[in-house]
Amino acid sequence: MLGKLFGVGVGPGDPELLTLKAVRVIKSVRYVAYPVLEDNESFSKSVVASYLNKDVIEIPLIVPMTVQRNPAQLAYDLSAKKISKILDDGENVVCLCEGDPFFYGSFMYIFSRLSDRYDIEIIPGITSLTAGTAAAKLPLLARNEYLTVIPGTLEEALIRDRILRADAAVIMKVGRHIEKIKSILNDLSLTSCSTYIEYATLPHQRVLKLIDSPLIAPYFSMIIVTKGTDPWL
Amino acid sequence: MLGKLFGVGVGPGDPELLTLKAVRVIKSVRYVAYPVLEDNESFSKSVVASYLNKDVIEIPLIVPMTVQRNPAQLAYDLSAKKISKILDDGENVVCLCEGDPFFYGSFMYIFSRLSDRYDIEIIPGITSLTAGTAAAKLPLLARNEYLTVIPGTLEEALIRDRILRADAAVIMKVGRHIEKIKSILNDLSLTSCSTYIEYATLPHQRVLKLIDSPLIAPYFSMIIVTKGTDPWL
Repeated sequence: MLGKLFGVGVGPGDPELLTLKAVRVIKSVRYVAYPVLEDNESFSKSVVASYLNKDVIEIPLIVPMTVQRNPAQLAYDLSAKKISKILDDGENVVCLCEGDPFFYGSFMYIFSRLSDRYDIEIIPGITSLTAGTAAAKLPLLARNEYLTVIPGTLEEALIRDRILRADAAVIMKVGRHIEKIKSILNDLSLTSCSTYIEYATLPHQRVLKLIDSPLIAPYFSMIIVTKGTDPWL
Repeated sequence: MLGKLFGVGVGPGDPELLTLKAVRVIKSVRYVAYPVLEDNESFSKSVVASYLNKDVIEIPLIVPMTVQRNPAQLAYDLSAKKISKILDDGENVVCLCEGDPFFYGSFMYIFSRLSDRYDIEIIPGITSLTAGTAAAKLPLLARNEYLTVIPGTLEEALIRDRILRADAAVIMKVGRHIEKIKSILNDLSLTSCSTYIEYATLPHQRVLKLIDSPLIAPYFSMIIVTKGTDPWL
């Protein structure tokens, strides 16, 4: 009998935003895998720390800090192999994932390598998108409104085009792309309806008008653009 | 002292997908408000039923079953008044919301009427979007991919244009618009990469290839289009 793999979304950072199901499943297994950037603490492990069994066996999955695809692919190959060995022994494994596993989640790379051979259950998590709108108290979408979710890593013309066409836009992965994004929003006269959020739900969370946002943004930051005109909806 | 209002996302339907924070806050208050369609059971109340205090005072908020805006606006005015009376007495109130409060959530209409006068905290919930991708085991977004979230209620040309430009698309509020959406996806040769999901996370959940989807879809249904080409990401 092969073990079962659980891809568990741990949400944006506040441990209270774990779901009841995530906590139950994490407590039910002996093996917990999690991504960790070279020489860093694992963010997803820190979120669930108080719910880990005392005798848990941890499986750190090293994620290289590079935008090049080849080293990352090799690292995910290795991670998938580590997990498959345990599943082959008939043991269940939880693999933690920041936010939601399939919403820019690192678990997708594990899933794509193992889904043809193993039973995998995905446990959805609170995304940074909804955590961010909640933190900023920004109603995002109502009625027939149309949302676009854009990685800030895209080239300028694409970002501009997509924001222009949307009723509401969430720009993820802002990080070192913040100046480019601010410039686009300024050109589109959308600065005043844009909000900057970093570390949503964490103790050092910040919500700022875009105009007050920092020159350098952390990776865990986003910009929300709401064009809504009717305050009473 | 005025009471505090909590807009609590209860997620897509499985009570285990409530967050720890939602459960704590629901248990902490005496007044729980929830939307209810005329003469129906309240879906959001059913999700949290086992976590309500025994002496809870329920405040049903009637939502008229109409797409006309005026009767809906009047109903939300009345709902906001009911809640504000309790807040004025210094009591805290939870207002439940299916999915996430600000992601097509009914709570937005209450929020827009009360946010200038009361302290309101939003507790994000699991959206049907991530619940659907988890149920269908469909990795949605990786790396630089771009998502569009489209209500099926939009007119055909707009839906077509938005799907065409996106790397991945989630069409919400499918319901009686399913034939229109299927026809668009067929024209765009995207039927084979489209998945139909209804009642995600509920016992009667169904995940079907679009070609096998029903002629009439319930309100709680969605179609996910993934154009991803690289199975190894």
